Amino acid sequence: MPSRPIFRLSELVARLGGELRGADVAVGQVGTLERAGPEQIAFLANPKYRRQLSDCRAGAVILSAAAVADWSGPAIVTSDPYLYFARVSALLNPVVRPAPGIDPSAVVAASAEVAADAYIGPLVSVGEGARIGPRVMLQPGCRIGAEVEIGADSVIHPNAVIYPDCRIGARVIIHAGAVIGADGFGLAWNGAAWEKIPQIGRVVIEDDVEIGASTTIDRGALDDTVIRQGAKLDNQIQIGHNVVVGRHTAMAGCVGVAGSTKIGDYCTFGGSAMIIGHIEIVDRVNVMAGTLVGKSIKQAGTYTGWYPMQPHRDWLANASHLRHLDTLAGRVRQLERKMATGEAPVADEGDSTP
Amino acid sequence: MPSRPIFRLSELVARLGGELRGADVAVGQVGTLERAGPEQIAFLANPKYRRQLSDCRAGAVILSAAAVADWSGPAIVTSDPYLYFARVSALLNPVVRPAPGIDPSAVVAASAEVAADAYIGPLVSVGEGARIGPRVMLQPGCRIGAEVEIGADSVIHPNAVIYPDCRIGARVIIHAGAVIGADGFGLAWNGAAWEKIPQIGRVVIEDDVEIGASTTIDRGALDDTVIRQGAKLDNQIQIGHNVVVGRHTAMAGCVGVAGSTKIGDYCTFGGSAMIIGHIEIVDRVNVMAGTLVGKSIKQAGTYTGWYPMQPHRDWLANASHLRHLDTLAGRVRQLERKMATGEAPVADEGDSTP
Amino acid sequence: MPSRPIFRLSELVARLGGELRGADVAVGQVGTLERAGPEQIAFLANPKYRRQLSDCRAGAVILSAAAVADWSGPAIVTSDPYLYFARVSALLNPVVRPAPGIDPSAVVAASAEVAADAYIGPLVSVGEGARIGPRVMLQPGCRIGAEVEIGADSVIHPNAVIYPDCRIGARVIIHAGAVIGADGFGLAWNGAAWEKIPQIGRVVIEDDVEIGASTTIDRGALDDTVIRQGAKLDNQIQIGHNVVVGRHTAMAGCVGVAGSTKIGDYCTFGGSAMIIGHIEIVDRVNVMAGTLVGKSIKQAGTYTGWYPMQPHRDWLANASHLRHLDTLAGRVRQLERKMATGEAPVADEGDSTP
Repeated sequence: MPSRPIFRLSELVARLGGELRGADVAVGQVGTLERAGPEQIAFLANPKYRRQLSDCRAGAVILSAAAVADWSGPAIVTSDPYLYFARVSALLNPVVRPAPGIDPSAVVAASAEVAADAYIGPLVSVGEGARIGPRVMLQPGCRIGAEVEIGADSVIHPNAVIYPDCRIGARVIIHAGAVIGADGFGLAWNGAAWEKIPQIGRVVIEDDVEIGASTTIDRGALDDTVIRQGAKLDNQIQIGHNVVVGRHTAMAGCVGVAGSTKIGDYCTFGGSAMIIGHIEIVDRVNVMAGTLVGKSIKQAGTYTGWYPMQPHRDWLANASHLRHLDTLAGRVRQLERKMATGEAPVADEGDSTP
Repeated sequence: MPSRPIFRLSELVARLGGELRGADVAVGQVGTLERAGPEQIAFLANPKYRRQLSDCRAGAVILSAAAVADWSGPAIVTSDPYLYFARVSALLNPVVRPAPGIDPSAVVAASAEVAADAYIGPLVSVGEGARIGPRVMLQPGCRIGAEVEIGADSVIHPNAVIYPDCRIGARVIIHAGAVIGADGFGLAWNGAAWEKIPQIGRVVIEDDVEIGASTTIDRGALDDTVIRQGAKLDNQIQIGHNVVVGRHTAMAGCVGVAGSTKIGDYCTFGGSAMIIGHIEIVDRVNVMAGTLVGKSIKQAGTYTGWYPMQPHRDWLANASHLRHLDTLAGRVRQLERKMATGEAPVADEGDSTP
Repeated sequence: MPSRPIFRLSELVARLGGELRGADVAVGQVGTLERAGPEQIAFLANPKYRRQLSDCRAGAVILSAAAVADWSGPAIVTSDPYLYFARVSALLNPVVRPAPGIDPSAVVAASAEVAADAYIGPLVSVGEGARIGPRVMLQPGCRIGAEVEIGADSVIHPNAVIYPDCRIGARVIIHAGAVIGADGFGLAWNGAAWEKIPQIGRVVIEDDVEIGASTTIDRGALDDTVIRQGAKLDNQIQIGHNVVVGRHTAMAGCVGVAGSTKIGDYCTFGGSAMIIGHIEIVDRVNVMAGTLVGKSIKQAGTYTGWYPMQPHRDWLANASHLRHLDTLAGRVRQLERKMATGEAPVADEGDSTP
């Protein structure tokens, strides 16, 4: 293992901004307020953890001006401690790059073009006509189909699969087991059986996208499926054919997006949200975890729809009424009408109980 | 890349039926009404896109008799334009077949039987006693366990895994990263820990089935898990042990089916539907996206159960009442009783507010 | 295929306890009451299948004292027939072990340490500094990252991926396509784009854990993600960074757990349950299938929250009221007030209909 870098606080401030308070100590790693030691730098992003500063043993802390009074040790003061921490961590934990070259166990088609400084790991396969850009890393066992193009500095993790003809931009990260470009779910019913519709579009992944482990993105039926610049997809996500995911949109794990749906820029989706097909979601929409989006969303904002959890017995008592909510609403309407018209109270009202 | 086929409209009609209107032009690819050019044939399946015909630049269009008046160019008139389009696309986009043979980097057990015209791609492994049928394609990195049998013309995409002893029919397509035959979730509690129950059944996949990327189908605990002829499973689906999926049943992405559930023929399941274990679903049932099937379905039809999405603030206001819906229903019942018996109105009713 | 073992009932009783009734027959395999033949031993765990005993052709049956009167053949009587069956099956179906050694097609880094009796299958890769313990089996195509440690008797199935630095205990089973240690979903927003936060924690999987096919467990952001001893995870589960899953906790397929959530011991989670991030769930909590856990659970018990399925038309009629449940509750409150105060009935009540 190569030794990791060490930075003095003054060096961090020189590169990243912020203001140094106290001694100009050196730090070699980031850590949490709870566990960081003297060689580490911690951060306070959420005021609710402020009391942890009193027991903190970190060599330095990144915090906001509002919290600086609670910490007597070395500090970097900045308006956004979380972002600052992210950048410090990136400096202290640079991506480890294997030596460039093609492992002898890899199988690279004769017509593939591989940049001289790319890394092709053990047991990788690269199909005919593929183009692997500068400094790309193909980790062990990943499968690059024919005519695939991968831009500079992208990383494909072990056993990920990219089907033929797909386009991957620069600085893209695709995690292990992800599958890019499998056939979309395109079927026509012939009266007796399903007939397969060839899926002749591609998947186009623009620059700076990250795709999580075991996420699947289907190729387009006719046109392309597109993941726009800067979008971030977590693990186990399913993106159907001809979906467009907008720029800088982020999706948490287990989200599903059905075919032909268009999602705007700067959206966020909580875990296991499900979006039906053939709808549009505008920019800056936040969909909370577990929500099924059953129609287009035309206005920015936060949307939710999930059933609140209860102790099982209470849920049984309450949920059964959902099957008759229309009847219940009708009974309330009827009561209101009777109150309003002065019909009630009378002793003989057989129609009010369903 | 081999050149793709080109067909005149008259040739398409000769093979597929339908009626030619206008010039007998040649087409080399399918496309959408919006983007198809002069060498492409588009289709109009959904009347709501009919106005797109006015700007369409396609060389020809597949449409129904009802729409033919809106299109002055070459056309094929048919009663089911979508199915016709599927068949035209299949003609224009035949599956690309690599040359038969075993790639030198593949590892094929000595006792495996591989048809002479099968294709075993780079870095594939095939276990002892496996039988690989005529014209089967095993794409790079897929894993075929011992004693597995794969029928004629099936395709196993990159890095898919088939555990030992499973049976795959003819013309089956299994997409990348799918896992067929892993152990079912069979555990017995011993009072202190879970003990594993050996999963000794197989997975049997009948002819003409398609399995999506990263879909997992567990082997049976004692008897087999069975996917019947013509069933189509999209990506990221989980099928538990001893499930039976009926003929020509189609499941969209992210569906889960728990163990021992039996699903009939000609059913459809929307995305991320969840079906609990040990139940039965009859033929011709449609389950909508996001629905949890918590008991057997004994009658054909369409079934739904998901919580409607709202702006977050509205959801908060509304959903909280679900925890007390039984109480609310009780209050309505009480109001009705009072109205009916003439108890009300009186000024002192402490029991009506929970 | 090696021949499977055969046991007389008396030998089973000598090893596993229970009481032999009737002839001391020999059995070679387990089976269901419905399908077992004379060489097989079946079991009756659930009294509701008791009537199947009358047609059962099994050589012997494992059952409880309460059911023994219904079966005239050879039997083993025990207080927990299901657990007994699990143990008999384990005896009759021992794990098949390939001969130890490293397949010539595997790529094992020079600095990796591999126990002499471990098995490294075809086309496996093992990174620098990895330590592979005694009797470990690495099935074809699995990827072991640098510095990974795998304890004795663990099995890693085909094409599973373990990222660098992770720790896998003893007797752990990881199924095909699982991904252990991919980056957590750690991002900081810089006002214009997401910046990646290095994920420098590990995944630590303790002894006796089983991980299902295509399940993904992300490495920690700063500290580790931990799966404690004896936990069992089914297929297609997503575990976010810094999650802790307690001892002997079992999760069914498609469950998602968002980052930093701590789950206690002896919990169970039904299929596709979703747990949000940064919460705590105490020991001995059962979460039913399809339930979204949106806040900490501080008391042991069973919790549920899913929308009951209905025929689609009924659901449409009922679910629409959910968007206005707060208004409905307000109307009931208003009715109650009017009844209580004697305002009603009057003819002019414009405010009672929203």
